[in-house]
Amino acid sequence: MTDTSTTLPTVRNGIDSAQIYGTLDAVKAEPDLARFEFRVSNRWIDGTHSRSTIQGLYGAGAEDTSRSEPFVVDASEPPVLLGNNEAPNPAEYYLHALAGCMTLTIANIAAARKVILHEITSTLEGVLDARGALGLDDSYRNGFERIRVSFSIKGDASPEKLQEIVDRARSRSVVYDMVTNGVPVELTAAVG
Amino acid sequence: MTDTSTTLPTVRNGIDSAQIYGTLDAVKAEPDLARFEFRVSNRWIDGTHSRSTIQGLYGAGAEDTSRSEPFVVDASEPPVLLGNNEAPNPAEYYLHALAGCMTLTIANIAAARKVILHEITSTLEGVLDARGALGLDDSYRNGFERIRVSFSIKGDASPEKLQEIVDRARSRSVVYDMVTNGVPVELTAAVG
Repeated sequence: MTDTSTTLPTVRNGIDSAQIYGTLDAVKAEPDLARFEFRVSNRWIDGTHSRSTIQGLYGAGAEDTSRSEPFVVDASEPPVLLGNNEAPNPAEYYLHALAGCMTLTIANIAAARKVILHEITSTLEGVLDARGALGLDDSYRNGFERIRVSFSIKGDASPEKLQEIVDRARSRSVVYDMVTNGVPVELTAAVG
Repeated sequence: MTDTSTTLPTVRNGIDSAQIYGTLDAVKAEPDLARFEFRVSNRWIDGTHSRSTIQGLYGAGAEDTSRSEPFVVDASEPPVLLGNNEAPNPAEYYLHALAGCMTLTIANIAAARKVILHEITSTLEGVLDARGALGLDDSYRNGFERIRVSFSIKGDASPEKLQEIVDRARSRSVVYDMVTNGVPVELTAAVG
């Protein structure tokens, strides 16, 4: 006799749903595990070009030590915005953050709901009028007026169920919340 | 006799202030030049891991063709958030976008004000309680409760003037505006 309960696959979409439910149970039992802090250190290189170093984070009740090496990520601008295309620009990284978060949230929710996904693709567009950021006309804001996001999702569930997963991801994505609602920033500068 | 007016340096901090003022004049004369569109295409790889391709943009009245190759930027999560550290996570990219934008805006404004900068460094921290994103307690939002940003700026100007440059950058940064005020998102999904 085989105990099939131990051989049922819990990994779907590359995500172990047993770990999802284990995390939920652990956080319910010990809410302090839910506190996370993410960190970035940035250094100006030259012109519009800067470099972020990303390694440590705090979460699940401890300082995370899983990254033996830091990630190094640059930002700059194309020539039309005074840079030399050393890297994507900050507004593009902002869209990338939104794309990455929505996508992994969709994959997580599908795994928890036992849906196998075959594909998630998305295109994102943000539009702005630079008269705002250039200080030429205050009737324009500095940032994007709006962002359009188009997802295409394929998987072994009905269109209705896939749409439910997208809707749930929208209501639970960390970055979607930050993009649509904003975040208070405390900014200090040591100068001289 | 030398015409010193043509030999005065206009490049400061790696940024040509003549180009800044030329851009301002051009946009004043033809406001349509101020319309920009930035774009990201993202594809899910597996688990929490996805990949963005970033190349084209529209701005200054034309489709930009300065990037002969696309930028390729991944996002994922550490194991504690169900990933394998394939790349920084989306919330970290969100902080990186803010750091990169504030930094290049500071460099631009200093160049326009004839201030030579020696150093711009920053550290950013965003904190959240995952009970929000996990759907365990709606009194917590999904995203960061707040972000702390600490800049250190060194340059050949008084502390007062450097502080003024930081304050001006805060009031003109594209991503600072988006982070603090949010952006409307139109999200559509083709499913099935």
